[in-house]
Amino acid sequence: MPSSRTSPSFPDSEYHDRIEKSRAAMEAAGFDLLILSDPSNMAWISGYDGWSFYVHQAVLLPMDQDPVWWGRGIDSTGAMRTVFMEEDDIHGYDDTYVMNPDKHPMADLARLIDAYGWSGCRIGVEMDNYYFSARAYEELLKHCKGAAFGDCTGLVNWQRAVKSDTEIIYMRRAADIVTAMHERIVEMAEPGLPKNQLVAEIYHTGISGVGGHFGDYPAIVPMAPSGLDATAAHLTWDDTPLRTGESTFFEIAGCHRRYHCPQSRTLFLGKPPQKYLDAQAAVEEATEAALEQAKPGNRCEDVANAFNAELGRHGFIKDSRCGYPIGLSYPPDWGERTMSFRAGDRTILEPGMTFHFMPAIWLDDGGLETTEPILITGTGHEKLAGTPSGLVVKD
Amino acid sequence: MPSSRTSPSFPDSEYHDRIEKSRAAMEAAGFDLLILSDPSNMAWISGYDGWSFYVHQAVLLPMDQDPVWWGRGIDSTGAMRTVFMEEDDIHGYDDTYVMNPDKHPMADLARLIDAYGWSGCRIGVEMDNYYFSARAYEELLKHCKGAAFGDCTGLVNWQRAVKSDTEIIYMRRAADIVTAMHERIVEMAEPGLPKNQLVAEIYHTGISGVGGHFGDYPAIVPMAPSGLDATAAHLTWDDTPLRTGESTFFEIAGCHRRYHCPQSRTLFLGKPPQKYLDAQAAVEEATEAALEQAKPGNRCEDVANAFNAELGRHGFIKDSRCGYPIGLSYPPDWGERTMSFRAGDRTILEPGMTFHFMPAIWLDDGGLETTEPILITGTGHEKLAGTPSGLVVKD
Repeated sequence: MPSSRTSPSFPDSEYHDRIEKSRAAMEAAGFDLLILSDPSNMAWISGYDGWSFYVHQAVLLPMDQDPVWWGRGIDSTGAMRTVFMEEDDIHGYDDTYVMNPDKHPMADLARLIDAYGWSGCRIGVEMDNYYFSARAYEELLKHCKGAAFGDCTGLVNWQRAVKSDTEIIYMRRAADIVTAMHERIVEMAEPGLPKNQLVAEIYHTGISGVGGHFGDYPAIVPMAPSGLDATAAHLTWDDTPLRTGESTFFEIAGCHRRYHCPQSRTLFLGKPPQKYLDAQAAVEEATEAALEQAKPGNRCEDVANAFNAELGRHGFIKDSRCGYPIGLSYPPDWGERTMSFRAGDRTILEPGMTFHFMPAIWLDDGGLETTEPILITGTGHEKLAGTPSGLVVKD
Repeated sequence: MPSSRTSPSFPDSEYHDRIEKSRAAMEAAGFDLLILSDPSNMAWISGYDGWSFYVHQAVLLPMDQDPVWWGRGIDSTGAMRTVFMEEDDIHGYDDTYVMNPDKHPMADLARLIDAYGWSGCRIGVEMDNYYFSARAYEELLKHCKGAAFGDCTGLVNWQRAVKSDTEIIYMRRAADIVTAMHERIVEMAEPGLPKNQLVAEIYHTGISGVGGHFGDYPAIVPMAPSGLDATAAHLTWDDTPLRTGESTFFEIAGCHRRYHCPQSRTLFLGKPPQKYLDAQAAVEEATEAALEQAKPGNRCEDVANAFNAELGRHGFIKDSRCGYPIGLSYPPDWGERTMSFRAGDRTILEPGMTFHFMPAIWLDDGGLETTEPILITGTGHEKLAGTPSGLVVKD
């Protein structure tokens, strides 16, 4: 690796392993070159790290040479500090291409593809990923007339499903961090505390890290809605004080070196009404039934079907998926966007896969989220975080 | 507004004013309907707030009725809690459309467009915005055969340029927050302090807020690179301790009710080398020259040209733009993505516009960022934040 590289998370050999796996998938799908716009795929293939995904950028993965980083000129220095490739593989475009309706960066990328002799390639682009816009595709088609484009959405994401030993180490550190974040919530929460003050504490704990391992920024900010706001899935916070007689769910993640461990818990201040206790009991029994199915050889849908059957026996219905894979990510999503725990998903579970088992249910006057990040082991699964299960009640 | 609405940031009348402005621009551009995918445009037009932009969603703006919110089923409750429109204008799609390669949400949107009788419209889509993917556009073309699509990227963003009185109040609160964040950095920074510990304090201060006004999440996380990492524009942080003899720049924002006030300062621990002092003096004089041009009637390029001329006299060159408009935003960018302070941008400055004047320069062994959020007033400009100018030296 270049001597100037900053704090690398993986040895070069791990990137070469990832590239080899990805090339096998490219070959099977009929691609000679991938244009990766998803920042998590860019990072996984090259090591690139930086908050620059608000401008057009990509990692190009060819079959027979190191990947190529392409992005805004002022970000090429960040690429030199973070990618495993040599300086020759880093190409920055001129700043007049930035947010300028008259000049689109994809014209520059097309020239680069041509300069590498890749103009006649079968090129995969991530058609349904953030950061590859409709206009970016139009411009690429216009400027790369000789190439045959195809959709490679998810191709690299799928290679990321089974985690390496080092990735699992980072996820365990992220799990320790989210555990500490939930401990801090239990310590601090009390009637009258403005929500944003509690969120400030959650951030402080999360970024401080645990056991000498620093906290990185999670790809999603804390969701922390109370009462009626908790009937909605994705509200964040304001300064309304916590109130007795109300539930608040906290959907948060620990993050270390871009690896995530999300986990949710629900807090009730005061004595929870019977329907919350009933719903919580149903979710816990359904979770137990579901996680029994979380083992190698079973399918994603086995987990969902077991969950839904048991939940139904208790008289509750959940009509959204109950889990998704997790790992390396960048905003706006900490999921990997491949498989889901839901009916019809027949993906086979393998050791080393990691999921956020996410049995949230929303009632008419509040929400309940008690979720578990899990690792599929050789024989079953392991809960990654040490947070106690169950509804958190502070009376 | 619906009685169940949570903590609204604006009266309904402000949304109606915004819609009226936007419709005039639609008419001029030849659109009957806009499909707004940019979360900041969705929020500005409808009030919608929530971290749900990792799935396909939109606000539809027709000419003759209230806007329509469309998104994932589980987020329609969040829409009911945040938008000014009635429940009839909120439409959620079924969860099987989420991250499922076999079913694309745009098929559902096309049905909705048809149900409203808008299939024959001239429809604007935000072709070059995050969250409107290449595949989303393909699917929309496939399922809406009668419509004529055109590019409306930036159309609503441009309407946001001149801020209302309430928006300016929120930006002043955000400015007070970023001022407090920089004060906290000066208080805490010392050799040996791990960077993530300092970032934890920055977050704590930012979310706690100032003067009883809560901190919201900024659309970009803190950039806080030191030494060689600060030669790069967009690295975030790890746990490397702060060191004597090194500079660190902090590009951070205060945020209140989604309104941003970004500001950067550079810290030097120990005695700064002469070249840092020279560069800082050059930037400060160039900033003064530039901001003299920041007044109504002048053009964006006047600010950039004055800055570049003065910087050049000191022997420094900056080849990236030196500012952009700010306000309401969601990740991954706190800019408005319309005009820029750069040569050739002939947009005329108007009272009520707000900018991040951003004269960053990167040296071969570090970076200098001393930036100013400004408001264009009736006669000139006003610095929004109270942070002292200049290099921060702790010796």
